[in-house]
Amino acid sequence: MADKLKQLKAALGEVYDLGKAAAVLEWDQQAYMPPGGAAGRAEQTATLRSLEHGKFTAAKIGRWLTELKKEYRRAAPESDEAALVRVTARAYDRATKVPAALVAEISRATTLAHEHWVEARRQKNFKLFEPYLENIFALQLKVAKCFGKQESPYDALLDGYEPGMKASQVRAVFAELRREIVPLVKAISARPESDDALLHRDYAEQKQWDFGLEVIQKLGYDLQRGRQDKVVHPFCTSFNTGDVRITTRVDKNFLPTCLMGTIHETGHALYEQGLDPRFERTPLCDSASLGIHESQSRMWENLVGRSRAFWKIWYPRLQAVFPENLGGVDLDTFYRAINKVKPSYIRVEADEVTYNLHTMLRFEIEVDVLEGRLAVKDIPATWNAKYNEYFGHEVTDDAAGCLQDVHWSMGLVGYFPTYTLGNIISVQFYDQAVKDNPSISGDLERGEYGSLLKWLRENVHRHGRKYLPTELIKRVTGSGLDSKPYIAYLKRKYSEVYGL
Amino acid sequence: MADKLKQLKAALGEVYDLGKAAAVLEWDQQAYMPPGGAAGRAEQTATLRSLEHGKFTAAKIGRWLTELKKEYRRAAPESDEAALVRVTARAYDRATKVPAALVAEISRATTLAHEHWVEARRQKNFKLFEPYLENIFALQLKVAKCFGKQESPYDALLDGYEPGMKASQVRAVFAELRREIVPLVKAISARPESDDALLHRDYAEQKQWDFGLEVIQKLGYDLQRGRQDKVVHPFCTSFNTGDVRITTRVDKNFLPTCLMGTIHETGHALYEQGLDPRFERTPLCDSASLGIHESQSRMWENLVGRSRAFWKIWYPRLQAVFPENLGGVDLDTFYRAINKVKPSYIRVEADEVTYNLHTMLRFEIEVDVLEGRLAVKDIPATWNAKYNEYFGHEVTDDAAGCLQDVHWSMGLVGYFPTYTLGNIISVQFYDQAVKDNPSISGDLERGEYGSLLKWLRENVHRHGRKYLPTELIKRVTGSGLDSKPYIAYLKRKYSEVYGL
Repeated sequence: MADKLKQLKAALGEVYDLGKAAAVLEWDQQAYMPPGGAAGRAEQTATLRSLEHGKFTAAKIGRWLTELKKEYRRAAPESDEAALVRVTARAYDRATKVPAALVAEISRATTLAHEHWVEARRQKNFKLFEPYLENIFALQLKVAKCFGKQESPYDALLDGYEPGMKASQVRAVFAELRREIVPLVKAISARPESDDALLHRDYAEQKQWDFGLEVIQKLGYDLQRGRQDKVVHPFCTSFNTGDVRITTRVDKNFLPTCLMGTIHETGHALYEQGLDPRFERTPLCDSASLGIHESQSRMWENLVGRSRAFWKIWYPRLQAVFPENLGGVDLDTFYRAINKVKPSYIRVEADEVTYNLHTMLRFEIEVDVLEGRLAVKDIPATWNAKYNEYFGHEVTDDAAGCLQDVHWSMGLVGYFPTYTLGNIISVQFYDQAVKDNPSISGDLERGEYGSLLKWLRENVHRHGRKYLPTELIKRVTGSGLDSKPYIAYLKRKYSEVYGL
Repeated sequence: MADKLKQLKAALGEVYDLGKAAAVLEWDQQAYMPPGGAAGRAEQTATLRSLEHGKFTAAKIGRWLTELKKEYRRAAPESDEAALVRVTARAYDRATKVPAALVAEISRATTLAHEHWVEARRQKNFKLFEPYLENIFALQLKVAKCFGKQESPYDALLDGYEPGMKASQVRAVFAELRREIVPLVKAISARPESDDALLHRDYAEQKQWDFGLEVIQKLGYDLQRGRQDKVVHPFCTSFNTGDVRITTRVDKNFLPTCLMGTIHETGHALYEQGLDPRFERTPLCDSASLGIHESQSRMWENLVGRSRAFWKIWYPRLQAVFPENLGGVDLDTFYRAINKVKPSYIRVEADEVTYNLHTMLRFEIEVDVLEGRLAVKDIPATWNAKYNEYFGHEVTDDAAGCLQDVHWSMGLVGYFPTYTLGNIISVQFYDQAVKDNPSISGDLERGEYGSLLKWLRENVHRHGRKYLPTELIKRVTGSGLDSKPYIAYLKRKYSEVYGL
C-alpha cells in the first residue's frame, strides 16, 4: 500500500508541476509578455493544461485512489496521508464526473458567449447576450446533474469553488447579512458624504509602489520567496511555497488602488507562503477554498489595512512620502476618506459595506435561475428591482447592471458568494485570533503584525487544503459559518466612522 | 500518408510547446525568480524536459518517421514536408540512439564534475578535477560510439551542435585560420597598445540601457515581439517567433558590456524573429545550428557594431548621452578603444582577433583526447604549451588556463568550435550580402540596417532548421565553409586600426 501511495504521489507531482508551469506562463503573459507572443502562448498554456488534466484523470489514479480510500478509511482526519487520499479523491471525482464532450461544449460556448458579452456590454443591451447566457446556464445545469442528486443544483457548482458548502448554508448567512446591511447602508446614506477628494490628488507612481512594498514587508511578505510586478488586473499566484508572487496596478490619481490592492494581494500571498512545504507537489499544497483564500486577503486589506490602528502607525509615514498632498490632512479625515461608503453600480469599485450586497444579488439570481424560478430573459428586470431594493436607487442601464461582470460569460456560476464568504470568515478568524492571543490587538496598535501572522500560519495557512472550508472554520472557531461577527464588525466600525 | 504527417505534426506540436514552456521557466529563473523558488523550479523544469523528451522519443514517432521517410524520399529538398521529415528523423535518431541509462549516468557524472570543477578552479588545481574530467571524456566517447563508425568520435559530438559538420572540416579551416591569426596577433602586440581607459569611466546604468534599446530598435529588433531584461549571464531565448527575448547585463565601469552584449543578443534575436512562422510548433522552427546562430550575433556585434561606419553614425549620439565621459574623445580614439586587441588568458573577455585562438586551442585538445592521442592528465601541460605558442606568453595557473570554462564540467564536448565557426560564417554571409545587394554598404554608412536585415531574412533566417549548416552555407554563398573571407576581414580591419 505504501507503494501505491508512492506511485500516486509521483503521478500527482507531475500533475502539480504541469499546473505550476502553466501558472508561470500565465503570470508572464500578464506581467511581461510582448503582444506578439499571445498566439503561441495560448497553444503552450493549452498544451500544459490539457496534459495536467489528462494525467490527473488517468484511470490508474482512480484505481489507486479506490484502494487507498479503503486502506485509509479508519485513519485519523489529521493524518496527512489520509487527507491526501481524501482530498485527491474528491478532486478526482470532480474532474472525472463531467464528460469530456460537455467540457468541450462549455469551452466552445464560453468562447462565443464572451465575445457577445463584450459587445452586449458595449451596446448596453442584454438582449444581445441573452441567448448565449441561456446556453451557459443550461450547460452549467448539465454539469450540476453530473454530480447526482443534490439539495440544489447550485450546490454542485458552488462545490467547485467552496468544497462542501451548500447553497442553503450560504442563503441562510446571506439573508441575515442582508437584513442588517441594507438598513446600515440606508443609515450611512442619510449622513453627510465623506470627502475623498484628497485620495484623487496627484500621487507619483514610484512613490506609491515603494510605500506599498515597505508596508507589505512589514506585514510579513517575504520577498526572498516572492516578488511584485505591475499588471492591468492584479492577482496573486504561487509556483511553490518558495515563490509566491503578487501583482499590482497603480493609479496616479487614486491612492487606494495601488496601496490597498497591494495589501489585498499580500493577504493572499501570506496564505500561500504559509502552506506547509511538506505538502509540495500534492493537491494538499493549495488553499482550502476561494472563500478561505479571500478571508486572508480581506483580513489584511480591511481588518488590518483600513483600521484606525494601522493608520495611526502608517499615516505619518505616508504624509512624509506625499507631503504636498497630505501634509495638511489630519488622520481622521484620511481615515474617513479611505473608509467612505457610497452605494454605486459597479461591484469591483464598491466599498467594504455595500460590496456584499452586490455579491448577494448575483447569488440570488444564480440560484433562482438554476432552481428554475427565474428565466434568463428576466434577469435584467430582477437585477434592477433587487438593486433598487438593496441600494436605494435605480440602475441606469444593463452595462451598469447585469452585464457588468465577466464571470457568467466565462461559465463561472457559483463563484460570486466566495467573495462575501471571505468577508464573513475573515472576521470569524480575526475574532478567534484575538481571543486566542489577546496581545494581537496591542501588537497591531504598535504596528507589529507578527503575532497575527503567526496565529494564521498555525491555525489556517499550514493546513493548506487538508480540511474542507467548513471543517477548517469549525476547527479554528469551534462554530460553523456565521455572519454575526462580521455584522458586528461592520456596525461597530461604520457607526463610529459615520457617527450613527 | 497525409494523415501520418498530420499526426506527426500534432505530436511535434505538443513536444514544441513543452520545450518552449520550459524555456519560459528558464528565462524567468534567470530574470525574475526569487531565490526561494529554486528548488520547486528545478522540479518543474525537469518534469517539462522529461515529458518533452519522452514524447519526442515515443516509438510511434519512430514508426511514422520510417514510413514518411520512404514517402518523401524523392521529394525536392525545398519541400517543407520533406524537410520536416528529414530534420525530425535526424533529431529523433540523435535523441534515441543514446540509451537512457547512459544519459542518466552522464547527468550524475556532470552534477558531480561541476561541483569539483568549481572547487578545483577556486584552488587553481587541475588534479582535483582530473578524475571527474576523465570520466566525462570517457562517457562522451561512449556517446560517440552510439552513433556507429565515424571518421572521428568527435564528429558524433560536434553533430549535436553543428549537424553534419565533421572534425576534419573544422580542423582544415581552423589550421588555415591559426596560420594567419598567430602572426597577426604578434604583429599587433608589437604595436603601441590602444588606450581603452575611456571605456572604464563611470557610465550611468539607465543611460547605457536606454542607449542600447535605441540602437537595437534601429537595427530592426521588434519590441512588439520581444523584450529585454537584466540578468547575470546574458542570453537570447525564443518562445515563438512572436516572442523572442534578449537579456543583458550592465557594468557601470565598462561601456561595451551592456552595449556590445545587447547588440550580440540582438543578432541572435533577429534570427529567431525572422524564422518562418509557418514552421511554428515543428522542429523546423529553430536555428540551423549553433554556428549559424553565432554567425548572426557576431555579424551584428562585430561586422556592424564594431565598424567605423556604425560609429560614424552613433558616436555623436553616444557623446550626447555621456558628454562628461566622451565629450572630449574623438571618434578615432573611441573606435580604437572598442577594437583594442590584447592577448589575455580568459576567453570570454577576449577581443575579436584573439578570441578564435582560444576556441581552437580547446578544439584541438578535445579532438586529441577523444582520438586517444592525449591523456586527460596531460591537458594542463598541453594547454599551457599551446597557449604560449598562440598568444606569446605563459599561463600563470590552471584557473587562468584549462579550468576557466564551465563547458567540460557540464559534459559539453564538441561545443567550442561553434563560436569560431560563427565568426567565419558571419563574414562569408556578410560578403555575400554585399555582393548580392551592393547598396548595403552605403546603407550601413547612413545608419540604415534594413537592407542587410532583409537579405538575412530572405537568405538565412526564414529557412530555420530546414537545411544543414553546410547546405545552407552552400545555398547562400555557393561555396563551403571557408575561413579566407574572415581572415581577409580581420587583416583589413586590424591593419588599419593598428597601422600595420
